[in-house]
Amino acid sequence: MKKSYPELIRRLHEIHDLRSAAALLEWDEQVCMPPKGNGARAKQTALLATLAHERQADPGLGECLDGCSRDPKLSASQKALVREARRDYDKAVKIPGDLVHEISETSVKAHAVWVEARKKSSFRLFAPLLSRLVSLKKEEAEALGYPEGGVPYDALLDQFEPGATVRELDPVFKRTRDITIAAIRSIAESRRKPDVRILRRRYSPERQEKLGRLILDYMHYDLTAGRLDRSVHPFTTGIDVQDVRITTRYEERWLPGGLFGTIHEAGHALYEQALPLAHSGTPLAEALSMGFHESQSRLWENQIGRSFAFWKFLFPRLRRLFTDTMAGVGLDDFYLAINAVRPSLIRVEADEVTYNLHIIVRYELEQALFARAIPVKDLPALWNSKMKEYLGVVPRNDAEGVLQDIHWSSAGFGYFPTYLLGNLYAAQWMATLRRDFPDLDRRLARGDLQTVKKWLNDKIHRHGRRYPASELCRRVSGETLNPEYFGKYLRAKYGPLYGVSWS
Amino acid sequence: MKKSYPELIRRLHEIHDLRSAAALLEWDEQVCMPPKGNGARAKQTALLATLAHERQADPGLGECLDGCSRDPKLSASQKALVREARRDYDKAVKIPGDLVHEISETSVKAHAVWVEARKKSSFRLFAPLLSRLVSLKKEEAEALGYPEGGVPYDALLDQFEPGATVRELDPVFKRTRDITIAAIRSIAESRRKPDVRILRRRYSPERQEKLGRLILDYMHYDLTAGRLDRSVHPFTTGIDVQDVRITTRYEERWLPGGLFGTIHEAGHALYEQALPLAHSGTPLAEALSMGFHESQSRLWENQIGRSFAFWKFLFPRLRRLFTDTMAGVGLDDFYLAINAVRPSLIRVEADEVTYNLHIIVRYELEQALFARAIPVKDLPALWNSKMKEYLGVVPRNDAEGVLQDIHWSSAGFGYFPTYLLGNLYAAQWMATLRRDFPDLDRRLARGDLQTVKKWLNDKIHRHGRRYPASELCRRVSGETLNPEYFGKYLRAKYGPLYGVSWS
Repeated sequence: MKKSYPELIRRLHEIHDLRSAAALLEWDEQVCMPPKGNGARAKQTALLATLAHERQADPGLGECLDGCSRDPKLSASQKALVREARRDYDKAVKIPGDLVHEISETSVKAHAVWVEARKKSSFRLFAPLLSRLVSLKKEEAEALGYPEGGVPYDALLDQFEPGATVRELDPVFKRTRDITIAAIRSIAESRRKPDVRILRRRYSPERQEKLGRLILDYMHYDLTAGRLDRSVHPFTTGIDVQDVRITTRYEERWLPGGLFGTIHEAGHALYEQALPLAHSGTPLAEALSMGFHESQSRLWENQIGRSFAFWKFLFPRLRRLFTDTMAGVGLDDFYLAINAVRPSLIRVEADEVTYNLHIIVRYELEQALFARAIPVKDLPALWNSKMKEYLGVVPRNDAEGVLQDIHWSSAGFGYFPTYLLGNLYAAQWMATLRRDFPDLDRRLARGDLQTVKKWLNDKIHRHGRRYPASELCRRVSGETLNPEYFGKYLRAKYGPLYGVSWS
Repeated sequence: MKKSYPELIRRLHEIHDLRSAAALLEWDEQVCMPPKGNGARAKQTALLATLAHERQADPGLGECLDGCSRDPKLSASQKALVREARRDYDKAVKIPGDLVHEISETSVKAHAVWVEARKKSSFRLFAPLLSRLVSLKKEEAEALGYPEGGVPYDALLDQFEPGATVRELDPVFKRTRDITIAAIRSIAESRRKPDVRILRRRYSPERQEKLGRLILDYMHYDLTAGRLDRSVHPFTTGIDVQDVRITTRYEERWLPGGLFGTIHEAGHALYEQALPLAHSGTPLAEALSMGFHESQSRLWENQIGRSFAFWKFLFPRLRRLFTDTMAGVGLDDFYLAINAVRPSLIRVEADEVTYNLHIIVRYELEQALFARAIPVKDLPALWNSKMKEYLGVVPRNDAEGVLQDIHWSSAGFGYFPTYLLGNLYAAQWMATLRRDFPDLDRRLARGDLQTVKKWLNDKIHRHGRRYPASELCRRVSGETLNPEYFGKYLRAKYGPLYGVSWS
């Protein structure tokens, strides 16, 4: 019994090292791997995943955890570590190996078919595999279990947002919908029309990268423990606390893509780089939830990156980098352009006001799917009618409608809601940060991003998974998740910007 | 019994996939990894090595091999595969786990101390760990065993050059020594003095890379199954047959470094890229020996890359890339400069004539060490006296003497001889290739490197480890390894170049 804790750590480190190696293989696949390396890479990655899963579900790990829970001498953080390790172990043993395997195999197929279906804009092609995935994930949800009086979908939410349930999220999402619709209506009435064409001038990728690196520097992203590369789909990967890499992409004719993409990923990366090093290789040195993760990227991308104070500082530097391109463009025009609000069809291109409605559509559809309330084949029609109702736009085809996102093809049901949670948390953190630093805008306007970074490091990052989400939220902001912060943020920012007001 | 073969393949693939993942981790460490990633990376790599070794020494693998050897239905290539898999298994089980571990731990320490010792040019610092490594490797040699009437050093040679023995190598090395000394003496008497200063002008690294990529293109190195990057120490890594990466480095003031370094690594890479894809993940799709590997890199670097025919083609292109730098330099001057022969102290900087003598010094010292004929402390004095005797130069200190190379610090005794074997094999292949293609120089002079590549693919690469070295050598060239080819090559090339002759 005395030896359980060190043995637990040894086992956790081994699982972590396998996952780190797998993460590097995946990073390399996106960033470096020559195309023909693909076949061999798939086998390598699958093997590492299997070895990690075997260890994660090893009964010996369960015995270790039992031993630890009988050990009266553990410190508070050791107890938290054991609690989180138990959580991961329970999940791993609850899902039968065959089911894991079948979901993984079906996902691989579904992904390939989704790519094809999206290209041909044919939901019918994708529907059979999507149905299969939904029913496999229902099995998984039943195997995992969910709270008394809850629904199977709760078990899926819990995989990305520990503890989240439909019962808790529903009112939050409804309120966010109302807040957002009110904002959109008011902004639509404004006579101020952003000129986004200034963002579509010619911005050389080399200079965009220079700009990105300049911002990374002000954000204090540690490049001796990270890298910036280019990839088709931008992402952040935490191979280890001291090896956290981000990627981005640049479009010559669309400045915001690379610019805010880089800031967004760096927001994720600052979280990963500041996880507690002393607990590296254990669940305590992992991010708390996907919602918390997204709160970091969105805070940096939108709350900071699209703020007037930040651009007061950065705009002269931007103009120096793009002297010819920016000719005749003033700070006010630029600030309005990067905060253009317009209901649109594609989630990843949506502005920060309309964005949440895309998520709410997904959330409502996912819930209905897993409550057996709707058949898969009805999804396109439902998607289109909800887009019309909430955003007032209707996709011309499934490719720009229900087929647009990759998540369902990889069985990632329950993931979308964390994007919205991230936005709400970000507003809540920011309101608290502003309370702690009433002169924050003056700091931002002189290029001081260190204040924000250190605050997030201290309040959120360094705790890893030590506290449950609701508790950490209370510790940071004094209350649990509250969508009103987001509403206040929108009113305070977009009201003056568009010369409108609403309540 | 019927199922042994597929099960063998499954096990071999798993070992291979683990090693591929480890190879990628090591590549990344040299090329991409941010400095702080070091600590975590060491753990990841060590874990993968352990997992691969466990599987390589698993008694279940031995049972599989036993089953296969009783299977009368195996094809010739399947039998060869079983033979080579048995060879790897036997090696893995013969060395006790504790010894593997101790050698690995001692090497890590020895490497760090060697770095320090070389910096301070103090052999005394390094001596104790070197002694320890020698005695551990003696244990290993005894555990591995060696042929009746042989010596323990044979067991070490065999790890890099399967089947090689001192008894066989001794006459080859002696003859090579005599051939080389005769060549050096004659060349020293020549009145033609190469002007190597033309190679020390300013060659921008960007253009050097362009030049390198141009040559890679003519060599038909497949960049869709490979990459070219920069690293401190150039190397080639075959992560998989379809993912073979090379690195190089450029010195602005020394053109040959990056130029011939790139060609050298590409020679290795062409071998790895043409191993039999159908047997990928098994020993059959591995290079036959380090000597064979080096024969590929040296053939491309020297026999092709430093030939007059090749530069007849490339020189105008080189001049176009470095118009100002190359002003006033003609093809003949350039050709003489890249073939300057001068006894020197540092192996990696040695020309192709004097190079083998550096190896012979190492070979003689290693043999003596493992025959207990000399104590470790006498190495510097012995090194210096042999350098004086064979090359006529004496190191001013141990850093440019016995401490110059990394190999001993990583317990790589028995590796050096494969460099010399590579040079001899390269000359033998080239003589055969010239017999098959009497117009080879005309082909090279019009940029046709495809002839050479295809010939090597067909004669050597595609066989992987199917045939033992002596048999493949006979299949390729009609006879076993014969140092006279190297002698003829030197006379045919350097005689006219320096206006001298010898026999």
